[in-house]
Amino acid sequence: MKEKLEVGILGATGMVGAEYVRMLANHPWFKIKYVIGKKSAGKKFKEAKAGEWVTSYEPPKEISEMVVEEANAEKQSADMFFSCLPTDAARELEPLYAKYFPTFSDASAYRMEPDVPLLIPEINPEQWVLIKEQKKRGWKGFLTTGPNCTSIGLNVTLKPLHEEFKIKKVVVATMQAVSGAGFPGVASMSILDNVIPYIKDEEEKVFIETNKILGKVVDNRVEFANIDVAAMCHRVPTIDGHMESVFIETEKKITPEDAAEVLRNFKGLPQELKLPTAPDQPIIVREEPDRPQTRLDRYAGSIPGMSVVVGRIRKGLDDHSLRYVLLSHNTIRGAAGNTILTAEMFHKEGWMYDYR
Amino acid sequence: MKEKLEVGILGATGMVGAEYVRMLANHPWFKIKYVIGKKSAGKKFKEAKAGEWVTSYEPPKEISEMVVEEANAEKQSADMFFSCLPTDAARELEPLYAKYFPTFSDASAYRMEPDVPLLIPEINPEQWVLIKEQKKRGWKGFLTTGPNCTSIGLNVTLKPLHEEFKIKKVVVATMQAVSGAGFPGVASMSILDNVIPYIKDEEEKVFIETNKILGKVVDNRVEFANIDVAAMCHRVPTIDGHMESVFIETEKKITPEDAAEVLRNFKGLPQELKLPTAPDQPIIVREEPDRPQTRLDRYAGSIPGMSVVVGRIRKGLDDHSLRYVLLSHNTIRGAAGNTILTAEMFHKEGWMYDYR
Amino acid sequence: MKEKLEVGILGATGMVGAEYVRMLANHPWFKIKYVIGKKSAGKKFKEAKAGEWVTSYEPPKEISEMVVEEANAEKQSADMFFSCLPTDAARELEPLYAKYFPTFSDASAYRMEPDVPLLIPEINPEQWVLIKEQKKRGWKGFLTTGPNCTSIGLNVTLKPLHEEFKIKKVVVATMQAVSGAGFPGVASMSILDNVIPYIKDEEEKVFIETNKILGKVVDNRVEFANIDVAAMCHRVPTIDGHMESVFIETEKKITPEDAAEVLRNFKGLPQELKLPTAPDQPIIVREEPDRPQTRLDRYAGSIPGMSVVVGRIRKGLDDHSLRYVLLSHNTIRGAAGNTILTAEMFHKEGWMYDYR
Amino acid sequence: MKEKLEVGILGATGMVGAEYVRMLANHPWFKIKYVIGKKSAGKKFKEAKAGEWVTSYEPPKEISEMVVEEANAEKQSADMFFSCLPTDAARELEPLYAKYFPTFSDASAYRMEPDVPLLIPEINPEQWVLIKEQKKRGWKGFLTTGPNCTSIGLNVTLKPLHEEFKIKKVVVATMQAVSGAGFPGVASMSILDNVIPYIKDEEEKVFIETNKILGKVVDNRVEFANIDVAAMCHRVPTIDGHMESVFIETEKKITPEDAAEVLRNFKGLPQELKLPTAPDQPIIVREEPDRPQTRLDRYAGSIPGMSVVVGRIRKGLDDHSLRYVLLSHNTIRGAAGNTILTAEMFHKEGWMYDYR
Repeated sequence: MKEKLEVGILGATGMVGAEYVRMLANHPWFKIKYVIGKKSAGKKFKEAKAGEWVTSYEPPKEISEMVVEEANAEKQSADMFFSCLPTDAARELEPLYAKYFPTFSDASAYRMEPDVPLLIPEINPEQWVLIKEQKKRGWKGFLTTGPNCTSIGLNVTLKPLHEEFKIKKVVVATMQAVSGAGFPGVASMSILDNVIPYIKDEEEKVFIETNKILGKVVDNRVEFANIDVAAMCHRVPTIDGHMESVFIETEKKITPEDAAEVLRNFKGLPQELKLPTAPDQPIIVREEPDRPQTRLDRYAGSIPGMSVVVGRIRKGLDDHSLRYVLLSHNTIRGAAGNTILTAEMFHKEGWMYDYR
Repeated sequence: MKEKLEVGILGATGMVGAEYVRMLANHPWFKIKYVIGKKSAGKKFKEAKAGEWVTSYEPPKEISEMVVEEANAEKQSADMFFSCLPTDAARELEPLYAKYFPTFSDASAYRMEPDVPLLIPEINPEQWVLIKEQKKRGWKGFLTTGPNCTSIGLNVTLKPLHEEFKIKKVVVATMQAVSGAGFPGVASMSILDNVIPYIKDEEEKVFIETNKILGKVVDNRVEFANIDVAAMCHRVPTIDGHMESVFIETEKKITPEDAAEVLRNFKGLPQELKLPTAPDQPIIVREEPDRPQTRLDRYAGSIPGMSVVVGRIRKGLDDHSLRYVLLSHNTIRGAAGNTILTAEMFHKEGWMYDYR
Repeated sequence: MKEKLEVGILGATGMVGAEYVRMLANHPWFKIKYVIGKKSAGKKFKEAKAGEWVTSYEPPKEISEMVVEEANAEKQSADMFFSCLPTDAARELEPLYAKYFPTFSDASAYRMEPDVPLLIPEINPEQWVLIKEQKKRGWKGFLTTGPNCTSIGLNVTLKPLHEEFKIKKVVVATMQAVSGAGFPGVASMSILDNVIPYIKDEEEKVFIETNKILGKVVDNRVEFANIDVAAMCHRVPTIDGHMESVFIETEKKITPEDAAEVLRNFKGLPQELKLPTAPDQPIIVREEPDRPQTRLDRYAGSIPGMSVVVGRIRKGLDDHSLRYVLLSHNTIRGAAGNTILTAEMFHKEGWMYDYR
Repeated sequence: MKEKLEVGILGATGMVGAEYVRMLANHPWFKIKYVIGKKSAGKKFKEAKAGEWVTSYEPPKEISEMVVEEANAEKQSADMFFSCLPTDAARELEPLYAKYFPTFSDASAYRMEPDVPLLIPEINPEQWVLIKEQKKRGWKGFLTTGPNCTSIGLNVTLKPLHEEFKIKKVVVATMQAVSGAGFPGVASMSILDNVIPYIKDEEEKVFIETNKILGKVVDNRVEFANIDVAAMCHRVPTIDGHMESVFIETEKKITPEDAAEVLRNFKGLPQELKLPTAPDQPIIVREEPDRPQTRLDRYAGSIPGMSVVVGRIRKGLDDHSLRYVLLSHNTIRGAAGNTILTAEMFHKEGWMYDYR
């Protein structure tokens, strides 16, 4: 077999960076060449993380011993780069890498740029063509983004329902885990025995991103969907896994049974292509009255953390509305895993190379 | 001064019972005569609770030393009884007490009976007249109920908004504390690092109770309101305090500023009557972007646990919708406190005695 | 290859029972024949657990579909039985099974019987010979027990230190997870934002069991060791994993470096025999100042949950004392895993069959 | 009545600073003149705290509206200053204030200086005389310190036992709340469902401070006690309240009954002087098997947070050893409250003025 593609991880020493490392450490197609960070540049990866290990994962020795490099798109060279940089750093650095390399980001900086795809591989792979427009930026590489972790879980479930029942309105209340705020993120004094009904900018992102994700690609542009989304976001004392309680109104009649059927049968391009990080079922539907639960279901499915688990599908207020609950792992499906799956799709479909 | 009225507490050894004891231990008008329970009948109150003390409150000696009695409406006699019995016990015992005595319950058994008021003193005191119909049951006393803890917090805020803006639709997601399930209630294995998106029968109660609470009294009956309420109820790892995230649609135009004004200025009959358990402000409106928070705000206000704290009042989806968050202490405003306030109102208004 | 040995699980529907099922579901030597329980007898295993699933594990279909049977040693027949019954049930039922079958228990009922081994396979395999004395009970089978979950973690570390430095005194403070109390076990109202400095009978067990475990086998009896053990046991709000903070005094001089060396190099019979459930390292020594941590290290090692993780090895008060911290998974190494490892050892060594 | 003494609070905007403000806001003798901080200098006190409100306390308007000043001992003037500064800031600033003013600190910077008292008012008030030596530093004012929060709870209980039974050895395991680390302090990712068996420098402090606290004052110096203290410190997921599990060895015979008697009857100078912040009982002894508990007992007693609650007094290993559990509120008795009580004692005894 051909050698593995070499990848660099921008922001490798953060909490989502750790998920990239874990998911790429034994990846069948990709191989980590660079772990890139700022504060810990010059240290070994294992030392960079020393003060911040808050997960039980420990990388293999060849990665632990890697020296963290500072970002330098001019000197570094790889088949592709992943970015989970903080917003400001992403804004500055991602274009420098996209100038030369395929760059797959889950950062928010460029999500809403008209020529940048906002991708969930199962949901809107067709947005890949937007990268063609990036030639106008003078880039030889390109940049893709993945949505906010809350938007991803939501839109994985909205898409098949929208196709079938035409969604007009969404009211969604989220109960988000602390890992969503990174490390150190939320202080323990702030969240023990508490709920915080506020996450900066999150509600606006869920609204606008949903309309880009579910939009229609016309002439290498996205015509936004026209769905009303009222998001209400809350931080709760859980470690990983965002739960979202959803109420939707639809143009067509909808029943819980039909909705369950549609969600259960949903498959996307990654499943068709049998990509390494594609879960067998993008959506797992539970029948029990009290599932999904955050701690019990966040790793459900064939690729832990990549399936969205849906339950409590029940009537809304009438024949044109529905309530359900979803759970999505925020740092896997909601960040690192979604972006790796995107890169796998680009590789398998040859989009990286056609483009060049 | 006239002597205090003697009261009995049905279900005194449970978790809400403990709140009744705490709030009545130094009450200016009422005096505990009976602590009534089943399993611990015959024990001293302090021993009855021995295995179950899960709050830091310790009752004064004269109550600690009281002997828990079994329910016996024929032998016991007091000026009134409070009931926080489990549903089945309430169904059996409350009528036996109502036959002779004013009986103020927060149990669910009789909430939806046409001749039983479902009262939040600030919101719908006019429902008191329903007790007149109870004569037909052959009762010399009467029975009132208070709504479910989740319904109470919600309706305290819905009422003034409904008066001003006419509410058509409510979508509410709740994040409820474990004390709402009593003791032992929710197992720690079930809720640590977890959210459970299900509380049995809760969503149905919130819908139907809201329409009784906000209904109109005509000829000693309630004509139900006609408000669509889609509730989505969740248990989260907090000890006390139910947070509710609310989306409403209104007939009249609504702005966050107007809504805040209406909520902030709201007062009810208990405030007018200056009842001992009436908080100065039934609704406290917070301006900060991240309040209310469960741990920080559950005891806010002049009577700890009696005010509903509202925040994050913001636009819904258009000029006829609104989002906001509310926090309400589930065992105080949501149970014991609400019912005690009801009894104070009946006493002050002379409704107990007119009736006889 | 020879067919797998058939096993029955007494108490299969409890929390530790679920660990047995998980660890035996794909076991190379053993195969589940019976899931035995009382309350759910007659139901399918998956339904038996329906109300109590508090872990994310879901058994394979052939087990989910098994019908839970009531205990009946006369009618059931298998190559061996495992028991994780509650104490009273264990007292009644284990002898009935031991009468006919090799019976491996982690329940406390018979731990202190003179003819019953109290086994941690790496620590005191020689106690197996006690079962020879059980012939006098008229048993064709036999009964072994494993220690209390707290005793196991402690003694895995005490043994190698005792061999090398001769321990005289142990002061140990434990911080135990809620799963140690089973399901529903500890109420959430009791443990959120709380520490409970009391676990019934636990401190006595740790003292007496340690002296049996570390005793000497003479003529098929255990001469107890003579170690002072002052245990102080606490429940803390963690899900799985008992942390124990240990202070020891030794006859011989002891340094942290020597102690670390001894612990790190420790291997037992299961490692030698390469038993399927034997971790490569019974003890993992961490060098970081702040490890082990409950959430990060409870699944460390080659067989998740079977290694005891030790850290913070530091001076005690003088040259003859030492402090260290250990973490041990209470339902795996502390219960199901330890007992399965015991059965593997008996099978591999032929102790089950020699005996007959 | 005479006017209140004016005080300044160095470090007023931190978490312990908030406790000073709360306890001094309505103090009968003292009145806040300055709230002093660095990062928020120039802002109103309520704004300084805006991002950090993690307690439910809200100060009265006259304090909320105070402008936070930067430290400036040359320009500020008050009857006394309190300091809860971080170590480095304390090292720099406390001498500048002590040069002119009575300065009462709970910071660690100068605790071990030979001429600085390390005070728990009930335990070692006689150390006050050390301040006489501070004249040699050319100070017109003086500096006192209070011990580490863990040392305080421990030594409140050790002192009466030491007097009666002569303590030789202490092994103490602590389970400390997150508020002990300040704000933001411990990240939620670090402590949810976790125990961290390490708090930097804490174990050394407990050892050395105990020996200074329980030392003997001779010629305005402290002759240190000679007690072996092996501390093992752990962070657990509780908000407030340090639990400590203690094993002691004594020269004289000790029984649980005698120890309980001694602890229960203990009173100190603050009780004698009836100081405003002195709890009726410095030590509350609980008889139940499972108390104290962190959430239930941290505010026990007549001055919430000022009493140390002791329970589970039981045999150690022999007639010369004992086990018990104590709970102490870390930011009140363990910091702000202890220091305010110290200042009250100095004021009442006239030590501030005699000295001058």
